[in-house]
Amino acid sequence: KIVSLVDAFFQPKELPLKGKKVVITAGPTRERIDPVRFLTNFSSGKMGYALAEAANKLGAETILVSGPVSLPIPSGVTVEHVESAEGMLQAVLHHFDDADIVVKTAAVADYRPKYVHEQKMKKQAGDATLELERTTDILMTLGQKKTHQLLIGFAAETNDVEMYAKGKLAKKNADYIVANDVTREDSGFGTDTNTVVLIGKDNFEHHFDNMSKKQLATKLFETILAHEEDLQYVR
Amino acid sequence: KIVSLVDAFFQPKELPLKGKKVVITAGPTRERIDPVRFLTNFSSGKMGYALAEAANKLGAETILVSGPVSLPIPSGVTVEHVESAEGMLQAVLHHFDDADIVVKTAAVADYRPKYVHEQKMKKQAGDATLELERTTDILMTLGQKKTHQLLIGFAAETNDVEMYAKGKLAKKNADYIVANDVTREDSGFGTDTNTVVLIGKDNFEHHFDNMSKKQLATKLFETILAHEEDLQYVR
Repeated sequence: KIVSLVDAFFQPKELPLKGKKVVITAGPTRERIDPVRFLTNFSSGKMGYALAEAANKLGAETILVSGPVSLPIPSGVTVEHVESAEGMLQAVLHHFDDADIVVKTAAVADYRPKYVHEQKMKKQAGDATLELERTTDILMTLGQKKTHQLLIGFAAETNDVEMYAKGKLAKKNADYIVANDVTREDSGFGTDTNTVVLIGKDNFEHHFDNMSKKQLATKLFETILAHEEDLQYVR
Repeated sequence: KIVSLVDAFFQPKELPLKGKKVVITAGPTRERIDPVRFLTNFSSGKMGYALAEAANKLGAETILVSGPVSLPIPSGVTVEHVESAEGMLQAVLHHFDDADIVVKTAAVADYRPKYVHEQKMKKQAGDATLELERTTDILMTLGQKKTHQLLIGFAAETNDVEMYAKGKLAKKNADYIVANDVTREDSGFGTDTNTVVLIGKDNFEHHFDNMSKKQLATKLFETILAHEEDLQYVR
């Protein structure tokens, strides 16, 4: 499957992802506490939406599994809206078997409230504790299940970005991790630009300059496809 | 101050809030857990923004203290953006002394994480607990501090709406509570329409039909000002 991706990349028609199915997850998830309150994060969905637009322009059948964001849907892209980590997992699994490339940009909640209250909780005097349980790790689940799929994860970190990204790559059995430092002003959640390092499982490392998320989206696909081609000669 | 409000209401120029300062809070708050995660709620800010627009059209100097929402700012309204319950409290207190009417529509977090982590928390195996502490109750603080201000609160409930609203009115020393059932499809968070009951501290009760939040905003001010005028004759 990777070989055929690479072949396609060097077709003169410049639609390297033609005939391929690309699944991209984007945005935050919301984990409900009660009917009005929830846990979430600052993910804007911009990087994932830019990747979906790029994949579509490169010729792919593109499925965007999106948490709640306020962004226009890129033309030609099929969107599935989800709310929670569990909803996102189910939507991705539904498309996984016949996907060629899966890019997991979504900032999925690691924890959800253990108990979801059906009615609005009344406040009480004093402190409280919210009991949390782990959600299913989507990237790890996909890493365990993958057969032919190229699996690309994102790591949004605030410290020791590359160290965590390399650990994540190995632990999750992903093919690539795109690591970014979300504490940078010009990078991460909500910004229109991003500064990332692409790390491959064969110690491949490519540092991208700061650029718009739209530009970066296309360059990420191009760099990954070119590297996959290089790997063919090595193997 | 109330007397002068009522006088103004029956001026032929139909700008019953001219010369008055109206402070409105709107939207949700976000309570950070770490640099990327936070606790929040489904408040869209639509009711508060509609009330700010109505107050401005009725002639008031209008201050809108807004949590993070994605709504256009009504023209003529001064907006102060805040993120957390504490930020909202400080902004409201700053404007409270010389305010004539304060309408608290914001869905302010009752609890915030007791510890805010400076770096993104790494997930660990197994369950976790999030320790929470109470935020300052803004409506109660204003109720204790008020001298001449007309204080109007909102109660978004999922059950026993009127019972909770009447309790809130007394406990918070508010003049009016606008109660709505956020489980109704045509009412509450995110919808463009609302179905509410206005409850006054003198057992005044007015049920509004379901209508757009923009229409309701004007009708709420009109109903409250007319009732304040009635109270003058009773006293």
